[in-house]
Amino acid sequence: MIRKYVFGDPIETEAVIAQIPAEPGVFTEDHVRLTAGTEGMHAFSYGLADKDRIYGLGENIRGINKRGWRYISNCTDDPNHTETKNSLYGAHNFLIVDGADGRFALFIDAGQQVVFDCGYTDRQKLTITVSEGGFALYILESDSLLGLVHEFRSIIGRSYIPPKWAFGYGQSRWGYKCADDIRRVVRGHREKGVPLDSVYMDIDYMERFKDFTVNEERFPDFPAFVEEMKAEHIHLVPIIDAGVKIEEGYPVYEEGVKNGYFCKNADGSDFVGGVWPGRVHFPDVLNPKARRWFGHWYQVLLDAGIEGFWNDMNEPALFYSEAHLQEAAKMLKDTKMDNVDIWKFFTLKDILLNIANRPEDYKLFYHNVCGKMVPHDRVHNLYGYNMTRAAGEAFEELSPEKRILLFSRSSYVGMHRSGGIWMGDNQSWWSHLLLNLQMLPSLNMCGFLYTGADLGGFGADGTEDLLLRWLELGIFTPLMRNHSALGTREQEFYQFGADDSFRRIIGLRYALLPYLYSEFMKAALGGEMMFVPLAFVWPEDAMAAQTEDQLMVGESIMIAPVYRQNADGRYVYLPEEMKLYRMRSADDMDAEILPAGQHYVKAALDEVLVFVRANHLVPMAASAEYVDAVDTSHLRLLHFVKEEAAYELYDDDGISRSVTLEGHLTEIRAKAEGDGDLKICVSGALAPRCGLI
Amino acid sequence: MIRKYVFGDPIETEAVIAQIPAEPGVFTEDHVRLTAGTEGMHAFSYGLADKDRIYGLGENIRGINKRGWRYISNCTDDPNHTETKNSLYGAHNFLIVDGADGRFALFIDAGQQVVFDCGYTDRQKLTITVSEGGFALYILESDSLLGLVHEFRSIIGRSYIPPKWAFGYGQSRWGYKCADDIRRVVRGHREKGVPLDSVYMDIDYMERFKDFTVNEERFPDFPAFVEEMKAEHIHLVPIIDAGVKIEEGYPVYEEGVKNGYFCKNADGSDFVGGVWPGRVHFPDVLNPKARRWFGHWYQVLLDAGIEGFWNDMNEPALFYSEAHLQEAAKMLKDTKMDNVDIWKFFTLKDILLNIANRPEDYKLFYHNVCGKMVPHDRVHNLYGYNMTRAAGEAFEELSPEKRILLFSRSSYVGMHRSGGIWMGDNQSWWSHLLLNLQMLPSLNMCGFLYTGADLGGFGADGTEDLLLRWLELGIFTPLMRNHSALGTREQEFYQFGADDSFRRIIGLRYALLPYLYSEFMKAALGGEMMFVPLAFVWPEDAMAAQTEDQLMVGESIMIAPVYRQNADGRYVYLPEEMKLYRMRSADDMDAEILPAGQHYVKAALDEVLVFVRANHLVPMAASAEYVDAVDTSHLRLLHFVKEEAAYELYDDDGISRSVTLEGHLTEIRAKAEGDGDLKICVSGALAPRCGLI
Repeated sequence: MIRKYVFGDPIETEAVIAQIPAEPGVFTEDHVRLTAGTEGMHAFSYGLADKDRIYGLGENIRGINKRGWRYISNCTDDPNHTETKNSLYGAHNFLIVDGADGRFALFIDAGQQVVFDCGYTDRQKLTITVSEGGFALYILESDSLLGLVHEFRSIIGRSYIPPKWAFGYGQSRWGYKCADDIRRVVRGHREKGVPLDSVYMDIDYMERFKDFTVNEERFPDFPAFVEEMKAEHIHLVPIIDAGVKIEEGYPVYEEGVKNGYFCKNADGSDFVGGVWPGRVHFPDVLNPKARRWFGHWYQVLLDAGIEGFWNDMNEPALFYSEAHLQEAAKMLKDTKMDNVDIWKFFTLKDILLNIANRPEDYKLFYHNVCGKMVPHDRVHNLYGYNMTRAAGEAFEELSPEKRILLFSRSSYVGMHRSGGIWMGDNQSWWSHLLLNLQMLPSLNMCGFLYTGADLGGFGADGTEDLLLRWLELGIFTPLMRNHSALGTREQEFYQFGADDSFRRIIGLRYALLPYLYSEFMKAALGGEMMFVPLAFVWPEDAMAAQTEDQLMVGESIMIAPVYRQNADGRYVYLPEEMKLYRMRSADDMDAEILPAGQHYVKAALDEVLVFVRANHLVPMAASAEYVDAVDTSHLRLLHFVKEEAAYELYDDDGISRSVTLEGHLTEIRAKAEGDGDLKICVSGALAPRCGLI
Repeated sequence: MIRKYVFGDPIETEAVIAQIPAEPGVFTEDHVRLTAGTEGMHAFSYGLADKDRIYGLGENIRGINKRGWRYISNCTDDPNHTETKNSLYGAHNFLIVDGADGRFALFIDAGQQVVFDCGYTDRQKLTITVSEGGFALYILESDSLLGLVHEFRSIIGRSYIPPKWAFGYGQSRWGYKCADDIRRVVRGHREKGVPLDSVYMDIDYMERFKDFTVNEERFPDFPAFVEEMKAEHIHLVPIIDAGVKIEEGYPVYEEGVKNGYFCKNADGSDFVGGVWPGRVHFPDVLNPKARRWFGHWYQVLLDAGIEGFWNDMNEPALFYSEAHLQEAAKMLKDTKMDNVDIWKFFTLKDILLNIANRPEDYKLFYHNVCGKMVPHDRVHNLYGYNMTRAAGEAFEELSPEKRILLFSRSSYVGMHRSGGIWMGDNQSWWSHLLLNLQMLPSLNMCGFLYTGADLGGFGADGTEDLLLRWLELGIFTPLMRNHSALGTREQEFYQFGADDSFRRIIGLRYALLPYLYSEFMKAALGGEMMFVPLAFVWPEDAMAAQTEDQLMVGESIMIAPVYRQNADGRYVYLPEEMKLYRMRSADDMDAEILPAGQHYVKAALDEVLVFVRANHLVPMAASAEYVDAVDTSHLRLLHFVKEEAAYELYDDDGISRSVTLEGHLTEIRAKAEGDGDLKICVSGALAPRCGLI
């Protein structure tokens, strides 16, 4: 059951696409209490019993259970996400209370800042505070945690579906400067037989960081280069940034100015911010005309043969606003630099340190929302969403048959229909490997299924063992990309020594692709999660609720990656008897049946632990060097069949936009015979040949 | 067996006090290989087998097993110690290789920078690189890990012993500005019956941050205030910083200048740095005369009744050097601030951001070492050591009978004889709770027994559950202090709600004091560790070697604190059968015997897990509100006696400097009778009455 309440006069976010009439009259709810309405803010509170748990909030720090911290929905470009931060790149205002007094979920549909105090100020109290401005509150009820998610997903629309090749392994680095750099990456993989499907192009490829340009010196005849890569089964995926460089003669800039498509100052002039290209304007993607215009600029790269994009810097990040920079410059100039005492010194430092992403700057510019000038801070959390939507909507027109890869750094619920996200600029920290795992289900709740973290870590120096362990999680995430920042240790697999381990582990991803793609597509088409906390599957199992470092991946398997340096294994909790496949490659593994309960399970540095549920199957292919080479006509099964098991395998051509379950399902049935053998039956659309492992 | 090699012409650090003749001739070792000597640097390498482990390196990030990262001994004031950092506040160049080819230890005795690449660049290689300058290398051999530590400790001298009251709970915060602030803290504890022995005075108490001054407006009649606090059984512990404010009429400054006791520029003038007081000079504590002079200034506060100090900012931290600040000011001034593009913007930002703790600045000033001018970077890691030694040596003269509390932020091996350390400016992060645990044994290896972390975390906002869980570890650490930074959430226990839990948990510390003080003193007097990794006690147990989140505390107990938010327990490995006391207070606990192996052990937010080894005893007192009130004449025993057990209890008056084991030991024996009862015998120096729990 879903109830909707409207407060004030909200700006329509289009996060929810179902038509739900608002409850009439004064707000009154058993579950949550409206506590205050001072200064235009609204606050809701809920008393927490000792064992109550809170789930959700999408992209965020801390655990699967979000209790005990204060989270602020305020899309922020801050790569140093230690456990003390409150905001990451996205705003996902969906939260589930799993309480002694029942289960319910809340969705705060608001483009402005929202604070979720989940027992931070007072351990026994959840308080949600919405900043000034109208908003809608949805209260969802269901008997089960999975039911709450399903209900939410049913009102926010279908998740974005990428082309199948985007499930392949991608290599990225801020710093690949020219075609030869990229050729070197491809060769590095192909020579060692390490699978690869894509190479990402960070800001280096552009001409002076201008969107929709390619530096012709470093990429002469770009379309030919794209073709050359395609012949090697490599897809190039360029980055697009939010800010449009101010430069005479640059058509994106000139068209935007002429048509009034950029964000404005209060006086109607175009707002000037500073990001990579220096001074920029920001496309007003909340204005449908401007959005359509900006989206159609992607055609420049589609025409060059590009089939995938990542949208970046779209919180939007703001290194400075021109107005404040001039102020700061004046302050610096006016400061007498002799006899600098410590307070003056810190003042000077703060002036420059606090110049980026200043809250005050986000109040300086305006969007045209249905003809009304709306200050940016009222819709801040919708910016990245609408930039990505610009591309998504354009692709529907420009590529009506074929799926285009698209994912974004910043996001809001609703964007999940247009593209995926990566988990932002993380660090080469073991703690971020665990954070990667813990974010997966909360993102899935909000419809973000195509997602993954920068494997090996973006910022900071990585190590070989960290990359290997991280890949052992990454082989399960739909977006599987190794990405790192300029100035950090290079972390393509071949920078280290264990080529064979990397080939085997990354190869496993390709072998598991039939299952992973099938589970992804069923989750997308059915409005379900692909990565599920144990607490959601075994809601009455108190130990399952405590388990924050294992996940179900689809219906058949549980994963438990090792995320500690120098560990030779880890503790694993099994809510029920399962079969453990300890996999070294698609062809090299051992299996054992483990009883329900706690175990310390060994996992060498190049071993992946896959736990198969009783009476479940996992269809696998042979490994391959790229997605197109995965042979889905011959499958092998991981299996734990005590009586009988059935698996519905989804597959399609991997590229057509129009997809339904119908016509794409194959039923694989396995039955235990008296002699311990399994009898396999396959029927349906594709009917591959199936054997056992 | 210990071998010493000398390279070049080292500056004597006095870390090692045993007379060990250097090996003659050319360096040649089975264990480590001298690989290069380019540009005056020396590098040693050792091939690592897959399962080899590395222990040691004192105060550092990452796990108990240090393998897989690069650590740099370079005392650094950097509070944001994420897992990506290389240097913390101390330099502890002692390291153990626990390898397939045997066990050995190395100590690099060098005041300059040393890099320990423990399988970072190449997973199979340990490489140690010593920066330019002479140094000594010690190679230690023993059959056992504990033997290696004992051997090392036998050559570096006895660990510092604080007064017993310094084992009480201390409350600290940067921001207690006046006597009334401190009175409020004391009242906050006494009113709720939460034990407290000391309140720390951060930089706020001084007059314009001048060492050895007390702000008279905020602390009128300071000696009377010290007395008033003592009457409440509260010891005030003021901070002393390294930098001496440049101010006419300030006698420390004037005497230092007059006598040439400050660090010099190359031209012989006094070097000017910037820290809290603004422009300062740094006492040249490597010069014995200057050291003695600076140490005797502590008398000002001793005379006011003070009995304890913490030395801070003694890496030394350098917010700026005057010379570079002027350079930077000129660069800023010369930069045209119109048309700031992104590169110019980052350049400006970098100028101010990189102004603190600049490596170049540490090369600008000089010490007088035996009459020779030595550039600071050659002895950088010895500065905090010698500042604390200044105080320690002075106290031997000024307080020849009575122990004075003394601990430091920066340190080097050798300083452990003069004072303890706290673990630097940590953060209110759950990960730093674990880091606290993991640093304890590596610090103990180097003789730093009196140590502990800022409980609840110094920087960042803490939470009630984090503080409770952290205290549950902190009750075992000799230094038990809750400390937090200006601007963060206040974190005295009474800022939260669970007064009763805090009283019971902190009370447990006082009840355990007889055991903890006894174990501390035996470790100090015997040259042993108090906190011991499981791997050191069960060296043949592979699972013990994997256990990085449990420790032995002394001979009888193992601890396994919960360090995850929202956890209702944790996995615990028992190398052998143990008795678990699940303690809610000194009087409220339950006990059960657990077999060897892996367990998930429940621990509610206010429960402490104490595991007692078979045939071991743990003497406890009743709880008390301050150390002096702990009644050691009536003890109760935690016990796990299968046959018989004996415990040698050390106790003394807690204040006299001259202490030996002799005359201070009581033997407590327990024998299991046929009927399951225990028979207790007590004999020796103090012979308290003993009962069972």
